[in-house]
This record gives sequence, C-alpha cells and structure tokens, in this order.
Amino acid sequence: MPSSQSSARKRQYIVGVDLGGTNIVAGAMPVDGSHEYAVRSQSTGAEDGAEVVMDRIAQMVADVIEATAAETGAATEDFLGVGIGAPGPLDRERGVVIITPNLGWNNFPLRQALTDRTGLPAALDNDANCATLGEWWCGAAKGGRNVVGLTIGTGIGGGLILNGALYHGSSDVAGEIGHTTIDSTGRRCKCGNYGCLEAYASGPAIAERAREALAGEEPSLLVGMVGGDLSRITARTVYDAASAGDAIAQEVVRETARFLGAGVANLLNIFNPDVVVLAGGVTEAGEALFTPLRAEVRRRAFRPAVEACRIVPGILAGTAGVVGAVATFKAQVLETA
Amino acid sequence: MPSSQSSARKRQYIVGVDLGGTNIVAGAMPVDGSHEYAVRSQSTGAEDGAEVVMDRIAQMVADVIEATAAETGAATEDFLGVGIGAPGPLDRERGVVIITPNLGWNNFPLRQALTDRTGLPAALDNDANCATLGEWWCGAAKGGRNVVGLTIGTGIGGGLILNGALYHGSSDVAGEIGHTTIDSTGRRCKCGNYGCLEAYASGPAIAERAREALAGEEPSLLVGMVGGDLSRITARTVYDAASAGDAIAQEVVRETARFLGAGVANLLNIFNPDVVVLAGGVTEAGEALFTPLRAEVRRRAFRPAVEACRIVPGILAGTAGVVGAVATFKAQVLETA
Repeated sequence: MPSSQSSARKRQYIVGVDLGGTNIVAGAMPVDGSHEYAVRSQSTGAEDGAEVVMDRIAQMVADVIEATAAETGAATEDFLGVGIGAPGPLDRERGVVIITPNLGWNNFPLRQALTDRTGLPAALDNDANCATLGEWWCGAAKGGRNVVGLTIGTGIGGGLILNGALYHGSSDVAGEIGHTTIDSTGRRCKCGNYGCLEAYASGPAIAERAREALAGEEPSLLVGMVGGDLSRITARTVYDAASAGDAIAQEVVRETARFLGAGVANLLNIFNPDVVVLAGGVTEAGEALFTPLRAEVRRRAFRPAVEACRIVPGILAGTAGVVGAVATFKAQVLETA
Repeated sequence: MPSSQSSARKRQYIVGVDLGGTNIVAGAMPVDGSHEYAVRSQSTGAEDGAEVVMDRIAQMVADVIEATAAETGAATEDFLGVGIGAPGPLDRERGVVIITPNLGWNNFPLRQALTDRTGLPAALDNDANCATLGEWWCGAAKGGRNVVGLTIGTGIGGGLILNGALYHGSSDVAGEIGHTTIDSTGRRCKCGNYGCLEAYASGPAIAERAREALAGEEPSLLVGMVGGDLSRITARTVYDAASAGDAIAQEVVRETARFLGAGVANLLNIFNPDVVVLAGGVTEAGEALFTPLRAEVRRRAFRPAVEACRIVPGILAGTAGVVGAVATFKAQVLETA
C-alpha cells in the first residue's frame, strides 16, 4: 500500500451530536478540532418517542460519516466514535439520561442506544457543558484556564471549565447557573425557586417583562411589531424595538443587562475566571447587550476579578454543541484510555 | 546514635499561623495532621504596624516550636516550615498580601518577612481558604471531594475545594461567596455592590436587621438585653432572644436562614458539592440556624444537588485557620516539591 494512502488514513475523526428539544445537529471533526465537516440539522420530533428519535440520530450519524468520508477520503474505520450532548440531568458514568422534560425521556440509556445503532463507542454530557466545552476547545474561550459558559435562550444553561477541565460536581449536576437566585424574594421560576437568573434574563423572561412594561399607558413600537398580539413578543422583538428607539423596549434591555450583570458578577466573585462566554439566542443582540452588561459587572464585581476576565460572545453559532460533543468523546474516551 | 532516637526524629512538624484583624492564632501539627500542638492566641495589635506585628508572629512561632518540641521530643530541624493564613486578596506566587484593610497593609511581602524572621520556609493563603482547607483536612468536611466552606462572622468568607484541591481562580481571588448578590436591588454592601449575601447574613448585618425590626411598636426582649442601647445588639443577642421566645428576634432568625439558604442553594446549584461547611461566630447558634437553613436550601435547590450534599457546622472551633495554614504549607511546599 503506498505510504500516501496510509498517511491519509492516519487522520481520525469523531462525530458530534447536539440533541435538543427542537433540533438535532450533527457533524464530524478530526481529533485535533481543526475543522467541522458535514454539519447538518433536523427537527427532533420528540413526540415520536425515544426509539424513533434514536433511529433519526443514527441515520444522521451515518450521513455525517458518509459525507465526511467523501470530502476527506477517510475510511469508515477512521471514525472513532460519537459524542452526544443531551438535556440534563444525566449520569455520565452509566451513560443514562435521567430526566428530560423536553424529550419526555426518563432513565433512558442514551449511550448504549447510540452504540447499538451506530456500532461506535459513544460518550455523553449535558448540552450546556458541551456548548461551553466547544467554545473552550475551538471558539471564543480558547486558551482560557477557568471558563464559565452561559447559553441564554429558552432557558439559561451553564458550563464550568475549572483548571483546564470540565467540572461536573459530585453527582454530575453542577453548573446550573440559570437557577441561581439573584433576587431571593423575586419572580417564581419554573424550577420552583424564587428569583432565579433564568426567571429574569432568558428569552421568554425578557418577553414577559416587556409585556408587563406595556401594561402602562405609554405607547410603544412593540405593540405594532406584533400586530397587537403581545403573546408574539420575543426577546428579539424587544431588542429590535430598542434599536428603533422605543423607550419601553430600551428600559427592558437595560434591565436585562442589570439582571445578567448581577448574575455574571456573582460568577466573577465566585470563580475569578479568565473568560465568561455567553451564547444562545438572546446574545444575538450583540453590543446592545454586552456593553451595558460589562458595565454592570464592573460596577458589581471585585476589581481584581474584573481585571482578570474577558466577557465575550460565543463564536460557534449553532455548532458549539456539536464541537463540544466531539470534545466530550475525546476527553471521556480517548484521553482517559 | 540509637535507632529509637532517629526514629523519633522522623516525625516532622509544620507551624500554622492564622493572622486575623483582631487576633493571631498559632500552633503546630505533625505532617499527617493527627494532632494540634501548642495552640496559642494573642491580640494582633494591628495599630502597631506591620513590622511589630511580624515580630509578634515570629515570637509566637518560636514559642510554638519550643512548646511542641518539649511535648513531643522533636528537634528544631523537625519543623519544616510555617504556613500562614492572612486576610486577602493576596498573591500566592509572590507571597505578597496585596491589600488588607483590617491590618492596613498594602503589597506587604508576608512570606519573605516570615522566612526572614523565623529562618523557615513559608507559604501563605487567604484566611477563608485556610479555614475551609482545615475543615476538609481534619474537620467536618473530611473525605469530601467537592467542598464549599463559608466562614460567617464580621464578614462572610468562602473557600472552594474542587475535585480534591483548593480552587484559587485565575488571579487568586476566587471564593468571594459573601459578595454574591442574592437580591440585586437590595441592601448596599460595604464592597459597593447591592444585595450581597454578606449584607444580609453576616453578624453585623443580622444585628442591623434586628435594629430595623425594633423600629416598630412591638415590644421585644432585645431592648432590655442591651440595656436600651440598640448599638450593642449582636447576632448572639438576637439568637439568645429568639431562644427566649422573642417574636421579633425569631423573625430575624427566620429571615437569616432564608437569606443564607438562598446563598447556600446557589452554591448547591452551581457546585453540586458533597459538603457545605459553615463556621464562624454566627454558626454558634447551632440548630436554631441549621434546621431552617437546611429547609430553605431544600426548597430552593435542585433535588439531585440537595441529595448529594450535607450541610454541616465546622468542628475546628478557633483552630480551622491554623490547621488550614499547616495544610497550605503542606500543599504548596511539600507536595509540589
């Protein structure tokens, strides 16, 4: 066999899967994380049940492998395994998703089901951990030693890289930063607690605060933007109205920065991280969010912690979870082997 | 030389010093942490300035070595070094106390000053880290893998043991749990932030809330207990009045448990620790504090995090800082050598 062929064979790949309540995203990367191949997305269709969703994932993994092989010349045996990020809580050691309200799964043996269908070794971690790991390995938090990641969308998920490794806690449920109280007598959160960060600064919470602000007499662009149907207000509507100069929306945006700033300042005082990376739909507001957020953090956190830390948007839009799932497989299977 | 003597010589000791704004406590321990020898305390006398305080510390170290040697038969060369805990923030690598308002020190080269005076190698860490390390090495948090320690007194200090090692953060200022916001529009804290845990649940904050509660018309035992001088109310007065059945004091105690419960629940959701250890003057209230505190944490935190964690009082009353200072020397000097 010519040596050029065996050298081409030497490049090895990992498939990453980001399993969300709405969409499944999958793709492949070489072990060195240098490129994303064959990234694709489809609807989860959670209502079809776990077995059908697993078949769907297995088909996507097969497609990703085929497309990546076609593009790179890799052979089937060059694909080492599959990493998957799933909504938590989960038991990494047993490879089991304990409970996932969005999918309706309970004690589902995700790792084994994935291996059964793909014939490949698998590793799992929760979605928020994977997203942070992705941004740390290949994205905005690259090079950080202590990194806190927040994904701000329908909920607020958190991931912690401490001393250069993902921190999981004593029973794999660490990093629930969205469910830290920033106002102990404040808004009721879906988790049952009061005043959680998520109850103020998730996408739905921002929309809800905007609806409340509209209860007054003041006119607002927001009403026209949703054709009078306030239930259609989203975080994006609020940021759009704010940039169009709407006073009510601007106040909601300022409040959001204050709430998120309080939450991020807490993280600085607790972790003294070198990077806080924020991703997810709400962060698409860009500097309209980040500028007042950073100002609030400076006001609240200790100066040495502020000076040590950059607060940045994620750069792996849509693929942080896939990249992190690849990194999870690498960390759990290759590096502990 | 008879072999029994050389074998006695084999036991080696470390001196620990806990430097506080009010008192200096010092003692010695064998490297295995099995016993505390010659523990002594004296007033810091911070007003005398750094040089005089350092002379005082050096004299205490000499006394501790002499007394420990007399008790154990150890020789001078069996004392390997001195660990010291000091109010932070500090730079461990350079061995420098950056700023300590209580002592009036700025950029003071504590480690070198200690070595110059004692002729022994030295290591330092901040007092809250040392207290947590002490309870983890020899106290209530022994055996924990992920431990959060809170020292609740004049302020609220925090220490983090994560994956079996003290976590310092990116510039040595991690663990400022007292300065995490639990009410983002709440009480102004001395640190400049609003709604810090310390502004609600430190000793002085408890006393302040009691004074505010007395502003109403309701009679209270508290007034008589301080001879009408409300400025003399302390956290202890409040807990004493509460156990004597005073309704106002009982409400302050319940509120304290709610505030601390919110702060500790945040720690559970963030760290998923196996132990949270609470020490310091305020925790002397015992079950009057811990029972409602644990109930509040159960109400607020995620169940898997609650189930993984025990919330316990520290057991090294008065010496956690010394034990931790010994452990700091061991970790920084002996185990990295």
